[in-house]
Amino acid sequence: MTRELYDLCGTDEGLRFSPYCWRVKYAFAHKGLEVQTHPWHFTDKEAIEFSGQGKVPVLVDGESVVSDSYEIFRYLDRTYPDAPLLGDATAEARARFFKFYAERSLAPGILRTIVMDLLNAIHPEDREYFRETREKAFGRTLEDLHSPSQGLSLLDKALEPLRGRLEESDFIDGNAPAAADYLTFSPFMWARVVSTADLVSNADPVYGWMERMLDLYGGLGRNAKRIVDIEGAYEN
Amino acid sequence: MTRELYDLCGTDEGLRFSPYCWRVKYAFAHKGLEVQTHPWHFTDKEAIEFSGQGKVPVLVDGESVVSDSYEIFRYLDRTYPDAPLLGDATAEARARFFKFYAERSLAPGILRTIVMDLLNAIHPEDREYFRETREKAFGRTLEDLHSPSQGLSLLDKALEPLRGRLEESDFIDGNAPAAADYLTFSPFMWARVVSTADLVSNADPVYGWMERMLDLYGGLGRNAKRIVDIEGAYEN
Repeated sequence: MTRELYDLCGTDEGLRFSPYCWRVKYAFAHKGLEVQTHPWHFTDKEAIEFSGQGKVPVLVDGESVVSDSYEIFRYLDRTYPDAPLLGDATAEARARFFKFYAERSLAPGILRTIVMDLLNAIHPEDREYFRETREKAFGRTLEDLHSPSQGLSLLDKALEPLRGRLEESDFIDGNAPAAADYLTFSPFMWARVVSTADLVSNADPVYGWMERMLDLYGGLGRNAKRIVDIEGAYEN
Repeated sequence: MTRELYDLCGTDEGLRFSPYCWRVKYAFAHKGLEVQTHPWHFTDKEAIEFSGQGKVPVLVDGESVVSDSYEIFRYLDRTYPDAPLLGDATAEARARFFKFYAERSLAPGILRTIVMDLLNAIHPEDREYFRETREKAFGRTLEDLHSPSQGLSLLDKALEPLRGRLEESDFIDGNAPAAADYLTFSPFMWARVVSTADLVSNADPVYGWMERMLDLYGGLGRNAKRIVDIEGAYEN
């Protein structure tokens, strides 16, 4: 039985930048399960029509089709209970907070820092779609959204509780990483793939954790193709 | 056997505003355990010298003396395992993040909003101590720190992940509250006791949660004496 994951790609099929897909790829690695990824781009809605919605990640595991990254975490824990991601009911309730912390505290500051890099990395057929949906969601143009100084300042404040936790522990979830780490790390993988922006100083406890996260599972994150690996990527 | 808790008080012995003490009082109520509180004020270091340090909360439970609010949570779960506060190792690792979220994300914005109210509520003998230690810690005068507009703006951003979680769940920890709720709620009790500032609009999902937190355990938080209950408190 092959497990298949539809995974967002950019201007190059190997450029995989979706934070929602990254957290799922880390979840598979955490479980020690193989998954075959299919490159997919935003406007290729037909290819994932079978999932009943239009966004990735979409997991196909035998008869099961699961979309939404957090639902995939739950599916994996239910179907492959070894090496839990979320844990018991209390642990899972708390894990849920990290989804919102990543998406609502960390991602906005990162987005304001990397949005033009992100636009450049996106599949050419997706750029109009990306611009329209994001400008509508944020109520301003991508050019107005772009402000690395404001973005980094927002991110700096948002990182405060993470710093506190990582000053005392190698991972958010303790001595070894689990769901809270993958959820929180996912926007940093998003930035790493599409941009060279330095989001965190190397004196920050968050920096050491990012390095540890990149090294996990044979360098799953560290070896991911980045925009800087693609010749001429800045000339599109 | 009587359990005793040294609990910070203000200008009136009944005015108990320490967020660290509040989280512990909620933890006792969660366990269904009685605890007798002793009013204590910042500069009364002698009264808690037996604990080997100079801050409250200090718990005396038979032969055991425990200081530091988080250590008291651990002590309570170890000694009275029914109705866990922190939960298993993964749940506890995640709970720890909420300590930093409360102290480093929520408290700074709240402090900038209520600092002059807080100074007014403090025991007269403590005011010089409070001013000196806080001005040193923040590198500016209390008057410079005081900025409700900046404080509320900081708080508004810091509340984003909490909003996400509370839009889908009555409590951070699920259908019933536990450690993450008590840790996160504690700076709101601090503000409630010393100030009348409206920190959160009543349309915010955080507001409904605050109301539920106030109502828990027979109105433990709601019935707490506030500065507005004390005649002439604003004339000190």
